[in-house]
Amino acid sequence: MKTKIAVSVAAALIGAAGSLAFAQSAANEPIQPIRPPQNINLGMVELGKKLYFDPRLSKSGFISCNSCHNLSMGGTDNIPTSIGDKWQQGPINAPTVLNSSLNVAQFWDGRAADLKEQAGGPIANPGEMAFSHTLAIGMLQSIPGYAREFKQVFGKDKVTINEVTAAIAEFEKTLVTPNSRFDQWLLGKKDALSADEQAGYKLFKESGCVACHNGEAVGGNSFQKMGLVEPYKASSPAEGRSAVTGKDADRFNFKVPTLRNVELTYPYFHDGAANTLAEAVDIMGRLQLGKKFTKDENARIVAFLKTLTGDQPSFTLPILPPSADATPRPTPFAK
Amino acid sequence: MKTKIAVSVAAALIGAAGSLAFAQSAANEPIQPIRPPQNINLGMVELGKKLYFDPRLSKSGFISCNSCHNLSMGGTDNIPTSIGDKWQQGPINAPTVLNSSLNVAQFWDGRAADLKEQAGGPIANPGEMAFSHTLAIGMLQSIPGYAREFKQVFGKDKVTINEVTAAIAEFEKTLVTPNSRFDQWLLGKKDALSADEQAGYKLFKESGCVACHNGEAVGGNSFQKMGLVEPYKASSPAEGRSAVTGKDADRFNFKVPTLRNVELTYPYFHDGAANTLAEAVDIMGRLQLGKKFTKDENARIVAFLKTLTGDQPSFTLPILPPSADATPRPTPFAK
Repeated sequence: MKTKIAVSVAAALIGAAGSLAFAQSAANEPIQPIRPPQNINLGMVELGKKLYFDPRLSKSGFISCNSCHNLSMGGTDNIPTSIGDKWQQGPINAPTVLNSSLNVAQFWDGRAADLKEQAGGPIANPGEMAFSHTLAIGMLQSIPGYAREFKQVFGKDKVTINEVTAAIAEFEKTLVTPNSRFDQWLLGKKDALSADEQAGYKLFKESGCVACHNGEAVGGNSFQKMGLVEPYKASSPAEGRSAVTGKDADRFNFKVPTLRNVELTYPYFHDGAANTLAEAVDIMGRLQLGKKFTKDENARIVAFLKTLTGDQPSFTLPILPPSADATPRPTPFAK
Repeated sequence: MKTKIAVSVAAALIGAAGSLAFAQSAANEPIQPIRPPQNINLGMVELGKKLYFDPRLSKSGFISCNSCHNLSMGGTDNIPTSIGDKWQQGPINAPTVLNSSLNVAQFWDGRAADLKEQAGGPIANPGEMAFSHTLAIGMLQSIPGYAREFKQVFGKDKVTINEVTAAIAEFEKTLVTPNSRFDQWLLGKKDALSADEQAGYKLFKESGCVACHNGEAVGGNSFQKMGLVEPYKASSPAEGRSAVTGKDADRFNFKVPTLRNVELTYPYFHDGAANTLAEAVDIMGRLQLGKKFTKDENARIVAFLKTLTGDQPSFTLPILPPSADATPRPTPFAK
């Protein structure tokens, strides 16, 4: 079913650019071009965009979704583990929000089924935004600009966390990055990739990387053990999927990260321990595939990976409705 | 000279909207309409916009200019005093960056002559971004996307703090907020203000507020003593202008803040101690003018102040060039 849709969309997209033969060859590749988002509610998107940028959803009034999933920087914060309320050090690397609608589940351990469920997590996490859903709702309802917009979008006077997370998730659904050079190549533009980049892709497939990093997001669609052939010495206490399933067999299983825009989403791995793509490719080869890539092989795979950077989300910085006199004020320095 | 320009710009702007008589009456008011920015170098603006949003200018990789001068929130952070590196509590309320090009000098105590000089301050301030100019330059030069853009804009291979602060300042020059309802009224649109709002403006003038809050920015053009008639009990240790001049007479003299967009720039005063406009107007009346406004008078002045909210800066969120392998990484949790 999924393949069928991909074929028809690819065929539609290819139009002037190439022939149906190319579209079919793209459909036969283990990586599929990113499709533009479908069935989007634009009113929810605009509201969700404001909420995504609003630090008043945190206790301090300082941390917004965009603080750690920064849309100027590949949808992440480019530090090993994030900074939370009162400068607490987070336990895990912030995964990119870009193309996250394509993930099988959310968070590294998949503990949230979808973006809507995920969005509620950091707001109430004492180590992150350190607020509560009740306080967030009270804040939002006290702001006339928000109250009006929630009513317009959802048709109800009362705001609940459901509407808040639904709007944020709808905005996040728009954060896909089509039109990477790799996708252009998949869709028939033969000269979109250099010979080295194509050789890197061939190596990526033949070495087995593609076994986990496949599909539209080049990852994000399965959980796999970190350190399959050789154990991984993590610099983070995170246990992975077992924290959700309670099964010892799931220990150190993490969601395979997307490789879309991977040039922008450094540092790498769930503990953010790998600073460069060369380092990440080397470690992945050894630990997951029992393979030591030569310097040249590594460079070619890295060259291929850099072709996965797509069009970054482009939108006007939202202007937030101001707090009213009755809006509770943030408490950044409260004990 | 300034009045002449204002007259001619106002006359040019007014065109279809009204008569020359209105333009001349606007020119006779103590508050002038905001003029669009002039002589802007767009290449510098685009580069400066990226730098303004880049948290890599901080030691932690987490704090950008926009963190405390948030352009989604009136160019400020809407908390009493800002949060710096490692969650340090700042000594003073972050002034809005909006219309700051109109200020007589920068910072509450005027210790920087202009926006360019100001921009270098927070980067190297251990309590704010906690970086250094040398580290910032090293970081920027290691990033190919920045190196190229600096060369394109400034025509030189070597980046210094001069180019960095010049670009940020040029972007900040664009952050003016024309077209407020009050400016529309000044320019001849008689129905742009309600009777109450006009009464508030009349009261604002007749009570003496306008003695300090005047000109294009409705403030920002002089230093005045906080607590002129009655002493102000500050919740901040800031001493004001005396810290710059060394003169005891300047103690507790602060730059008069702009009232443009004041509805968005809460909390108020250099220590951020007043949460609402009603509170701020009441305190100002008593401490600066020896005047106790009635509830109705206060409400009318507040209604007038809310007409000073202009068009907020509207631009596409910048996408930052990614760090290269050789780019030094931020150290958010280093001792």
